[in-house]
Amino acid sequence: MAGSTFGTLFKITTWGESHGAGLGVVIDGCPAGLSLSKEDIAPYMNRRRPGRGNFTTPRKEDDDVEILSGVFNGLTTGTPIAVMVRNADQHSKDYDKIANYYRPGHADYTFDEKYGFRDYRGGGRSSGRETLSRVAAGAVAAKLLKEFGIDVLAYTHSIGNISLPADLLNDRSKITREAVLNSSLYMPDEESTKLAEGYLEEIKKGLNSAGGIVECVATGLPSGLGETVFDKLDARLGQALFSIGAVKGVEIGDGFASARSTGADNNDAFICENGEIKKSTNHSGGVLGGMSDGSPLIVRAAFKPTPSIALTQSTVNKDKEEIDINIEGRHDPIVVSRAVVVVESMTALVLADLLLQNSVSRLDNLKKIYDKK
Amino acid sequence: MAGSTFGTLFKITTWGESHGAGLGVVIDGCPAGLSLSKEDIAPYMNRRRPGRGNFTTPRKEDDDVEILSGVFNGLTTGTPIAVMVRNADQHSKDYDKIANYYRPGHADYTFDEKYGFRDYRGGGRSSGRETLSRVAAGAVAAKLLKEFGIDVLAYTHSIGNISLPADLLNDRSKITREAVLNSSLYMPDEESTKLAEGYLEEIKKGLNSAGGIVECVATGLPSGLGETVFDKLDARLGQALFSIGAVKGVEIGDGFASARSTGADNNDAFICENGEIKKSTNHSGGVLGGMSDGSPLIVRAAFKPTPSIALTQSTVNKDKEEIDINIEGRHDPIVVSRAVVVVESMTALVLADLLLQNSVSRLDNLKKIYDKK
Amino acid sequence: MAGSTFGTLFKITTWGESHGAGLGVVIDGCPAGLSLSKEDIAPYMNRRRPGRGNFTTPRKEDDDVEILSGVFNGLTTGTPIAVMVRNADQHSKDYDKIANYYRPGHADYTFDEKYGFRDYRGGGRSSGRETLSRVAAGAVAAKLLKEFGIDVLAYTHSIGNISLPADLLNDRSKITREAVLNSSLYMPDEESTKLAEGYLEEIKKGLNSAGGIVECVATGLPSGLGETVFDKLDARLGQALFSIGAVKGVEIGDGFASARSTGADNNDAFICENGEIKKSTNHSGGVLGGMSDGSPLIVRAAFKPTPSIALTQSTVNKDKEEIDINIEGRHDPIVVSRAVVVVESMTALVLADLLLQNSVSRLDNLKKIYDKK
Amino acid sequence: MAGSTFGTLFKITTWGESHGAGLGVVIDGCPAGLSLSKEDIAPYMNRRRPGRGNFTTPRKEDDDVEILSGVFNGLTTGTPIAVMVRNADQHSKDYDKIANYYRPGHADYTFDEKYGFRDYRGGGRSSGRETLSRVAAGAVAAKLLKEFGIDVLAYTHSIGNISLPADLLNDRSKITREAVLNSSLYMPDEESTKLAEGYLEEIKKGLNSAGGIVECVATGLPSGLGETVFDKLDARLGQALFSIGAVKGVEIGDGFASARSTGADNNDAFICENGEIKKSTNHSGGVLGGMSDGSPLIVRAAFKPTPSIALTQSTVNKDKEEIDINIEGRHDPIVVSRAVVVVESMTALVLADLLLQNSVSRLDNLKKIYDKK
Repeated sequence: MAGSTFGTLFKITTWGESHGAGLGVVIDGCPAGLSLSKEDIAPYMNRRRPGRGNFTTPRKEDDDVEILSGVFNGLTTGTPIAVMVRNADQHSKDYDKIANYYRPGHADYTFDEKYGFRDYRGGGRSSGRETLSRVAAGAVAAKLLKEFGIDVLAYTHSIGNISLPADLLNDRSKITREAVLNSSLYMPDEESTKLAEGYLEEIKKGLNSAGGIVECVATGLPSGLGETVFDKLDARLGQALFSIGAVKGVEIGDGFASARSTGADNNDAFICENGEIKKSTNHSGGVLGGMSDGSPLIVRAAFKPTPSIALTQSTVNKDKEEIDINIEGRHDPIVVSRAVVVVESMTALVLADLLLQNSVSRLDNLKKIYDKK
Repeated sequence: MAGSTFGTLFKITTWGESHGAGLGVVIDGCPAGLSLSKEDIAPYMNRRRPGRGNFTTPRKEDDDVEILSGVFNGLTTGTPIAVMVRNADQHSKDYDKIANYYRPGHADYTFDEKYGFRDYRGGGRSSGRETLSRVAAGAVAAKLLKEFGIDVLAYTHSIGNISLPADLLNDRSKITREAVLNSSLYMPDEESTKLAEGYLEEIKKGLNSAGGIVECVATGLPSGLGETVFDKLDARLGQALFSIGAVKGVEIGDGFASARSTGADNNDAFICENGEIKKSTNHSGGVLGGMSDGSPLIVRAAFKPTPSIALTQSTVNKDKEEIDINIEGRHDPIVVSRAVVVVESMTALVLADLLLQNSVSRLDNLKKIYDKK
Repeated sequence: MAGSTFGTLFKITTWGESHGAGLGVVIDGCPAGLSLSKEDIAPYMNRRRPGRGNFTTPRKEDDDVEILSGVFNGLTTGTPIAVMVRNADQHSKDYDKIANYYRPGHADYTFDEKYGFRDYRGGGRSSGRETLSRVAAGAVAAKLLKEFGIDVLAYTHSIGNISLPADLLNDRSKITREAVLNSSLYMPDEESTKLAEGYLEEIKKGLNSAGGIVECVATGLPSGLGETVFDKLDARLGQALFSIGAVKGVEIGDGFASARSTGADNNDAFICENGEIKKSTNHSGGVLGGMSDGSPLIVRAAFKPTPSIALTQSTVNKDKEEIDINIEGRHDPIVVSRAVVVVESMTALVLADLLLQNSVSRLDNLKKIYDKK
Repeated sequence: MAGSTFGTLFKITTWGESHGAGLGVVIDGCPAGLSLSKEDIAPYMNRRRPGRGNFTTPRKEDDDVEILSGVFNGLTTGTPIAVMVRNADQHSKDYDKIANYYRPGHADYTFDEKYGFRDYRGGGRSSGRETLSRVAAGAVAAKLLKEFGIDVLAYTHSIGNISLPADLLNDRSKITREAVLNSSLYMPDEESTKLAEGYLEEIKKGLNSAGGIVECVATGLPSGLGETVFDKLDARLGQALFSIGAVKGVEIGDGFASARSTGADNNDAFICENGEIKKSTNHSGGVLGGMSDGSPLIVRAAFKPTPSIALTQSTVNKDKEEIDINIEGRHDPIVVSRAVVVVESMTALVLADLLLQNSVSRLDNLKKIYDKK
């Protein structure tokens, strides 16, 4: 497995399993001179932490983050920033039962096929807990982006069939970080949150689980971020978001709906406002030709229902016998709300990397750096 | 722009603009000993070629492909395979008019923002013609995959609101390569093709354009392809498909629909058939935990309507004046049908790369190679 | 700084400063199924540890290594192996004095120029202690190589003008791991060791320091390791060895001497011994055309004298004033002996990576893996 | 073979064999806005071209270079620059004789071992002609570096035992590009050139061949180029120069001689001249801690004697029979002079890449680019 590194200039390498000693990330390529401390990372970790509302696993995860390198006197030094979280709650004995069969919807089978065996404790490397490393890195990326006036905000767009109201989706400037953080489901609308809570209550009673959609908006982006042709902004976002465990679909702007539109309706006209070129609409979701176009970036990721359910399921074991199983432990009926900050983090990581790459795209820009020396 | 390379072991680097001297690709990492000739590549190029049916641009593209290196006595040597196509039809004067304004829905504006200026002839590097390099490389990847019994087939899933019938989508084993190639729109169903042709006739009359969805299925895959965590099979497909010009959405398996499903419905039960572990359903689209799970891989890409339309549109020019434009030349009302082979090619490239990477995931597999020496 | 990752398939990412919380490495891409424990790594760490003989710094480094991930039930799982060592001995106050001037021969000045400031405590990221991460990773690479019968052994070739005797250098099969480990200077010859100890005694009395050469031999290599053209075996070794702090020269085989030889003398004739193709001589040092040729790999790295000396030196401070300095603390007159295991580790890392890459170079080899499935 | 790409931001991918259709390079990542034409590349190609003086092969290589993409209206566009040279002189029949045996000192054997067979015509991918692609790319890198006042100059330092005189090597500012280009051997000293010509006359008469050393100096470098820890300036140079066919050793600054020096002698004192920090000496060769230190960069590469000699040699054939061979055709007694421009090109490529990477190392530098937007 050599897939644990992501990014070209703002490059992260993650490591860790659900029930090993801990998890962490090495962030290599963060420019020197950025103010950074544990306190910048902790709020992101907290948003990923379970136990909020009624629908997420009560596993006590302390998630005390430690910055091990790359920061001196409160500033990044340009050297790799290593961040680590110890695993505290390791009842690996609970997992012996699942060692010998393949849970439907999980990576048990594919891990065994690929590697010959697996660390079956809590899903090992395929655990949702793996995303903790990404969130720690995402917090650093977001801090860097803020220096350039770029803000990245993700939220729950829908749970099952319950979506944010049309007026918010038609004017996303109404969606505030405060409203997102106030919702038990990170869904920035009180009514929608209540409806979704009700739906999840039902799902939970039925020993079942639900899916949903996370949306992420980035504002303040300069035009031109994204490297043609394979490292386009949307291409990198596609990789970033599909790399999150339960994601089965990704859209930019109008996404799949644009496939049913027409050119006349879908094209965003360029206009000039106060001497700046803008677009009259934003069907493109802020991406044209694989580069940021100055409008807000809008991206959505569809999450499948969490596969761990309390209902009896049929599967096979390692001896290729068909069996019925009941997965023990408490189950979250939803992971979408905890995944919101993961989507925000991955988006921030892509943007930070492309911002750095974009800096060297023009000779005149480079001269601004070197001619003053 | 350093984004023109894709892949880790089966690695391609593309180059070329619509109206430059030509376009091409360097394929580095194709294993030695694969039978390969121009004739393996030409059919893929032909499928991308316009002029089929009534809806694609009659620009005469000869697209004579030349293999410049990496093949000796009919076999790949293990060295880079360079493939080139000369541009024949270069009326760049036609494009002078568009040099000074930004076409809606195109990359004109973002290219200028990123690089300070652009090769405006025919879209330059952002032209659909750029995909020609990928198709040439995809043909080689597909040839390699065939050696391992892997088949990759893409087709038009829908154009506007007209989709393939449910019986085909419920049992994709009924979809044949022959049916795909027989349709003027690469839509493997006669009735759907006719309906779509009628719809496109209307669109064309209205000087408008249409979008659609391309679906791709890969069969014969071993389990375990995909590198956790950022180079998962679905993550790499996400990057690969979003890197295609007009793509605004990507789904694996049930995709966005799974966000509205429940765990009980969406989980695929493992079963045992003739001593082999399989899944009773394939909501996952052949990917579990980011790795191929032995079921057919199913992926869809949503294409926005082609932005070049004959209708008058409003935009701004370089002097930031708002103007109305009529883009001259003949316009395709649809690019989806020509993009089918691009989706197939990108999928093949991802699979070839991950197949190679997967080969080194286990010590016991490696010993099969070295212990015999 | 995005240069902390090395390797394509057996890929390491290092982090850590001399006086931060600790140092570590993430090894991504080690095949699953390799037996691994702390005990495999500790002996390599011990060889890097100071305090051996009379010439290395008595700083107490406990260097207790911890494997944080990637190993389950004693076997590598295929997921990233994170290894960490805490820094125990952090008297960073001692370093306040050097914060404002640039030590000759050190990276103080260039770090300030590149990043605007630096973690000046003990050299920060440019400390020799950084190599600890590489040695931990090198131990894992060496363990992997052993599975394929490949052995990597480094030793002190010369210190100042004192070199190993000609009979050993003419027949390196006489050099044993035991003899290397028995020497206080890892110089596998008693007489040479004594001479070098005497020389270092003098150097130490003179408040000065000495340089030397480390040689590394790898045996049991299959032919063909190395990727043409930029990832040739010798090219990767060149990068690997020059990445070690004080290295100023690298040679393969006859190295610089071959520039003064002739083709007739320098060419190694192929011969056939017991049905195997071999070379009658090994001027090439085991590398032909950038690939291993089946003969022992021989590589040398020249280390400059350690720049930290007790003699008064002249330099400038941050205010650009010319000053005289006396660097406090105890100084090693030599780093070469501690660097031996670093050279061995970097060589092992290059070989492990190229061994994996070589596995996918031929279609027939790949079929050995997939056809049995 | 996936080793044909070099560089992170200024990234080149080479392709081509000695006797295939042609050779070329794709340069991805050259900033937009650089003036570039064929005329910038041709002089570099000419320096690599044989037929100069009496000692290089009279094979008629026209080497007409073609820029296929990435340049518009005389400026680089930021998109990949593809450069190609057709092979004109393809008498591949001449090579049938060598198809079945392994030439000493050549890559014949290792290619067969790695790939199972080889393109034996003229050495295929391992031919010296492969460097043509690098030189084309190096010319572009050198043009870019000039925009920042950086000059790279390589020359023959020694042939066999004949070296440049001490006065030149003690003060390299005396070495001029003009003197280099005036020498038949690119050796910037008339007397040395004559002596070397005499030596080579003897070598040629003896049907033998000679080696030598190429030195390269880069001036005008800003401090700080080089990415710690594996992409240090010297590490990347090590990879770059060892990737050239016949190179067996690489040194920076005092190189191997520094291993026999002492700290007091080898340390370069910092001084202040006209308000600028400089070094009183340059034992370091312009590299401290893996970064450029503002002094001239000095690097040397040792070339083994060309292995193709007219003398009878013993070797084995594919049937493992020991045989005597006479390699037909005309042989160059020396490749060093033709390799000078290759060393210069590789050095320029490393510097261009590290210059781009260095641009994003500091937050304050980045703000110079984005805050003006």
